[in-house]
Amino acid sequence: MNDDIASPGRKLMARLDEFARFSDEEGRLTRLYLSNAHRQAAQQYVAWCREIGLAAGIDASGNVWARYEGKQPGAPALMIGSHIDTVRDAGKYDGNLGALAALAVVEELAKKGERLDIAVEIVAFGDEEGVRFPTTLTGSRAFAGLFARSSLDQKDADGISMREALTNFGCEPEAVATLRGRNVAAFVELHIEQGPVLEAENLPVGIVTAINGATRFHCTLRGLAGHAGATPMNLRQDALTAAAEMILMIEARARSENDLVATVGRLEVEPGAVNVIPGEARFTIDMRAPRDAQRQRAVNDIDKQLIAIAKARNVELISVHTHEAGAYICDPRIVAGLKAAVERIGKPARLLPSGAGHDTMIMGQLCPAGMLFVRCKGGVSHNPLESITVEDCEIGFAALMEFVRGFKAAT
Amino acid sequence: MNDDIASPGRKLMARLDEFARFSDEEGRLTRLYLSNAHRQAAQQYVAWCREIGLAAGIDASGNVWARYEGKQPGAPALMIGSHIDTVRDAGKYDGNLGALAALAVVEELAKKGERLDIAVEIVAFGDEEGVRFPTTLTGSRAFAGLFARSSLDQKDADGISMREALTNFGCEPEAVATLRGRNVAAFVELHIEQGPVLEAENLPVGIVTAINGATRFHCTLRGLAGHAGATPMNLRQDALTAAAEMILMIEARARSENDLVATVGRLEVEPGAVNVIPGEARFTIDMRAPRDAQRQRAVNDIDKQLIAIAKARNVELISVHTHEAGAYICDPRIVAGLKAAVERIGKPARLLPSGAGHDTMIMGQLCPAGMLFVRCKGGVSHNPLESITVEDCEIGFAALMEFVRGFKAAT
Repeated sequence: MNDDIASPGRKLMARLDEFARFSDEEGRLTRLYLSNAHRQAAQQYVAWCREIGLAAGIDASGNVWARYEGKQPGAPALMIGSHIDTVRDAGKYDGNLGALAALAVVEELAKKGERLDIAVEIVAFGDEEGVRFPTTLTGSRAFAGLFARSSLDQKDADGISMREALTNFGCEPEAVATLRGRNVAAFVELHIEQGPVLEAENLPVGIVTAINGATRFHCTLRGLAGHAGATPMNLRQDALTAAAEMILMIEARARSENDLVATVGRLEVEPGAVNVIPGEARFTIDMRAPRDAQRQRAVNDIDKQLIAIAKARNVELISVHTHEAGAYICDPRIVAGLKAAVERIGKPARLLPSGAGHDTMIMGQLCPAGMLFVRCKGGVSHNPLESITVEDCEIGFAALMEFVRGFKAAT
Repeated sequence: MNDDIASPGRKLMARLDEFARFSDEEGRLTRLYLSNAHRQAAQQYVAWCREIGLAAGIDASGNVWARYEGKQPGAPALMIGSHIDTVRDAGKYDGNLGALAALAVVEELAKKGERLDIAVEIVAFGDEEGVRFPTTLTGSRAFAGLFARSSLDQKDADGISMREALTNFGCEPEAVATLRGRNVAAFVELHIEQGPVLEAENLPVGIVTAINGATRFHCTLRGLAGHAGATPMNLRQDALTAAAEMILMIEARARSENDLVATVGRLEVEPGAVNVIPGEARFTIDMRAPRDAQRQRAVNDIDKQLIAIAKARNVELISVHTHEAGAYICDPRIVAGLKAAVERIGKPARLLPSGAGHDTMIMGQLCPAGMLFVRCKGGVSHNPLESITVEDCEIGFAALMEFVRGFKAAT
């Protein structure tokens, strides 16, 4: 490892610590879209851009954006970056790692006066998490020309509309829907994995092949509440034992194929007394897979088996699909380029799908896109315990740098 | 069926309706131990006793008690009755049926001036449900000489001690622990089944063989919360899927033997979000069986399998036995006597265990004891929907009457 105190990886880690002070809540990191903390963070990002001679701007949706010209002014741009909003009580790396790594890449080029065949654009999206308003990914949606004007009327928990919040931030709400990045040849995002795969395989980085599509269900089972002592087993219509059978069926189906995952994250039981047979159980299912057809087959199988189990156990089933999002297959050229870059810096190039959603899946609607993951401790994210090592940060940054230097725009 | 408007069964049903007006809550039946509604109900019971020439009294614990002499004054007594306290938002029959049926039996004898070889004592226990204070079955415990003086210091939700409540009710708290019924040859309780067995078999009444013993557990499972999209199935420590496997194991073990029941009535999942793998699951187990050895074998098996499942799934298990109560085997002579009585009135005599606890299991410590069940609609109890038919009430009453007339005290 590079022990130089001023190595780009170490400097990046120090900046991530410094950047984490921009928070809407004392004592923990919470940085909501268009909040005071977001404004301070955006201004700091702009200031850091200026330090290296870059004229950064804040677009109509609150994204910070800057361009480092290539050898020829007006060349197509490779865009790199991520988001700088956070969940409540967040870690320091989700989003911020990619946004500040993009800045570090350009800093490295600028320091040496190095110009590439392409321009490099960097971005710090203002909203990915969707914590403040009901919608998510506002920043990349706006940049990709996919912002729905109706979103302006959404309100936060204090009754402030997105329109008002944009105005207070100094943005022009009516211009958001007409934003669209121009002449962007590709988008690449560095991000923490938010899962345990790289750690389990002892790998510092991974190349994302696809961002999983997702289907969510809400299921309600209605059986018959009864006295736990007075009702023989064969006369029961127990909503919870039915749910338990369904949960194990869902788990078994997800285990039957690589890259498919399914989770029952919520389960509530009524009436919920120690001596009463559950009359009702409500639970959620979240299913994800990198290929839509794979996910759809699993959804169909689970739908059928839910019905069969409910019938066999004589409980009523109400099952509603509440959310459906297609997978984004990362651009094969970007995947190949990232793989080659990781191998050139002497690291194993593990390909893996992303279970979580990212700005990349939106930017993929605008241009070829891809992602590079950095291992995070225990796979923990959305939590102050979120952690990466300096060494992994160094490797992630080096791989991104290598990719940027080697990138050729399609002709 | 007896269509006479004044038939004992019809009169009993009418009285149960009338009695249900004594409630601590407007619009629903809630009659807590030593409450105003309890006082009114007890006074009404005393008044009805007086109407048939019986000198009823209220004992130191709030039980209403009266004696109908036999041919010889001072003869051993057969005691019949049940409790007149209720759960919150109760039905009209749990407890009250047996208490008012006892009164109806004596009324029937008194009306005809009929004297038996034995005396008949009737009782309306003041607390069986244990809703107001932490302990249950205060009335029968006191009568059986099993009241623990320390119970007097228990407080209700308003901070009123049982001692104060007894004093306010007009009772003598210090005398409760020295109460004990004298010269009681046997105790028999008529009660609704509170389960679905008789209805499923289309039978109006059943004879209880045993009151099930019970073991309760609280289990906590600690796995690892994680991102529902980003954590592959093989790297999960899902507390809920572990709980689901345990729930089905418990169900299968209970189904493997007659008369054994097991219920997981409560289950809570943390953090309980649609897109987060459950890191913690907490649930209760309630196990009951008419034979202690049978229950103990099942408890041991389940204990072992809980540990095995937790180990195989790499989740931490904390399992605590929170409650343990031995079974009460009903007195064989009483069971035989009730069976013969039911057959004499021309009905099938179904023997079955009681899954719920009853005053009979306490009175069984004082004297031979047994129970007669009346079918209830859907097995529903502890609920305003609690319901029995006039016909079944008639049959239950007739069987009890027949038993009382045929009862011979052991010599």
